[in-house]
Amino acid sequence: MPPSFEERLHDAQSASGSLVCVGLDPDPGKIPADLRADPAPLAAFTRRIVDATAGIAAAYKPQIAFYSALGAERELAEGIRYIRERAPRALVILDAKRGDIGNTAEAYAHEAFDRYGADAVTVNPYMGDDSVRPFLARPDRGAIVLCRTSNPGARDFQDLSSDGLPLFRRVAARAASAWNERRNLMLVVGATVPREMAELRGAHPELPFLVPGIGAQGGDLEATLDAGLDRKRAGLLISSSRAIIYAGGGTAAAIRAAAQDLKTAIERRRSA
Amino acid sequence: MPPSFEERLHDAQSASGSLVCVGLDPDPGKIPADLRADPAPLAAFTRRIVDATAGIAAAYKPQIAFYSALGAERELAEGIRYIRERAPRALVILDAKRGDIGNTAEAYAHEAFDRYGADAVTVNPYMGDDSVRPFLARPDRGAIVLCRTSNPGARDFQDLSSDGLPLFRRVAARAASAWNERRNLMLVVGATVPREMAELRGAHPELPFLVPGIGAQGGDLEATLDAGLDRKRAGLLISSSRAIIYAGGGTAAAIRAAAQDLKTAIERRRSA
Repeated sequence: MPPSFEERLHDAQSASGSLVCVGLDPDPGKIPADLRADPAPLAAFTRRIVDATAGIAAAYKPQIAFYSALGAERELAEGIRYIRERAPRALVILDAKRGDIGNTAEAYAHEAFDRYGADAVTVNPYMGDDSVRPFLARPDRGAIVLCRTSNPGARDFQDLSSDGLPLFRRVAARAASAWNERRNLMLVVGATVPREMAELRGAHPELPFLVPGIGAQGGDLEATLDAGLDRKRAGLLISSSRAIIYAGGGTAAAIRAAAQDLKTAIERRRSA
Repeated sequence: MPPSFEERLHDAQSASGSLVCVGLDPDPGKIPADLRADPAPLAAFTRRIVDATAGIAAAYKPQIAFYSALGAERELAEGIRYIRERAPRALVILDAKRGDIGNTAEAYAHEAFDRYGADAVTVNPYMGDDSVRPFLARPDRGAIVLCRTSNPGARDFQDLSSDGLPLFRRVAARAASAWNERRNLMLVVGATVPREMAELRGAHPELPFLVPGIGAQGGDLEATLDAGLDRKRAGLLISSSRAIIYAGGGTAAAIRAAAQDLKTAIERRRSA
């Protein structure tokens, strides 16, 4: 039997000694100059990033939109295979924010888990129970449900209160009580809202969080860790994309240094 | 200047004399037997459906999940090109339920509008304002925002009330007041909830609705039309997928008859 998603998550964190998730958001306008002439520039950029960060990153999170926009599905698959070779214990999270009715959600799960072989996929909960469950059916794969996101628009609906509880808390409550039988569910909680993260951690001591919003979006790392670490000083994957992959214009040394700096800053606070 | 999305929608409805939207959900297990050996079975099935329904359908709605699951992006593009040839005045709606932070949403808009050349794309509002706006930036293309969906899980979050208004009503209010400057926004409102549709129509007499849930999901056509038609007896696209494309095992004659039956049933009620 393959290891469970929960075991995979813990193993990825202990293999790297790290909570760092490297976001692969290869914006075509920002591919490093020396790779632009490559016939498969997204895959080449991914190889550079993975080579520079293997052993530092607990997880990689390719953002499928940047590949889909360019018809570069093959480069996405190639990039994921490269991660498996170079960093076999790291998790691969397909950032796709899927969500649809039952039979369609199953097709999306097939895309993420079988076509691309991802360990986990991000999922949008707006359509409710039957739109989320197909992503949670396999004990060795995870769903990472949008809860309180890091972007400015997050407050428009996620913060709306009904019977005293904001929507994002209701999503978390439903996730914890109904969707997590296989312990393969995480929540997306943005680094831009440490107060909300602390609330969520208090209510759900055992749910792991994927945390975007450090760096370019303005989230504070120390406040995030203080709010979100669980009793074992884990329970988080801290995702950074642009601040790592475009460091120094995207040279291998600068990418490695940026990832290492994030790891070090996290570990300092974790062990404090 | 190309015609606006609003003009395209009206033209598609008058060219076909119809509010019918044919959903292209080519489940690989249900491809008609005689097309399974085709080297590009999804594209062949799409051609059959389009040949059978051209002139009847106001719109076609390919569900991208079924293509993505199989790595059949090329067949999706080919199918859309075929719709353009055979039914040049019909709308193409990419059913993708996208939604992500600003720069990622822009990549998704590029995928839908440039890569596939769709006229509109379905969008998930959970992440709020900045996740929706990139899909509304072009006056000749539309965004169709999930509001009250037709699936059982829809009630989990969409019906939650804050200050007396359920979430789906807040999404509609935000869409109408802030996102529709270019009059290129529609709402997804399921046929399974005619009472909620009537409320939405009352509050938003001018917003067009895309309506899934007729047929396989149990929505009632007459109740839907009574609830959703606007003052001009239009304002709706009634989507049907499985009940049309798999009619009679997927023969051309059965597909045509099923689409024509839906059109006739709609027109009877519209002119009543």
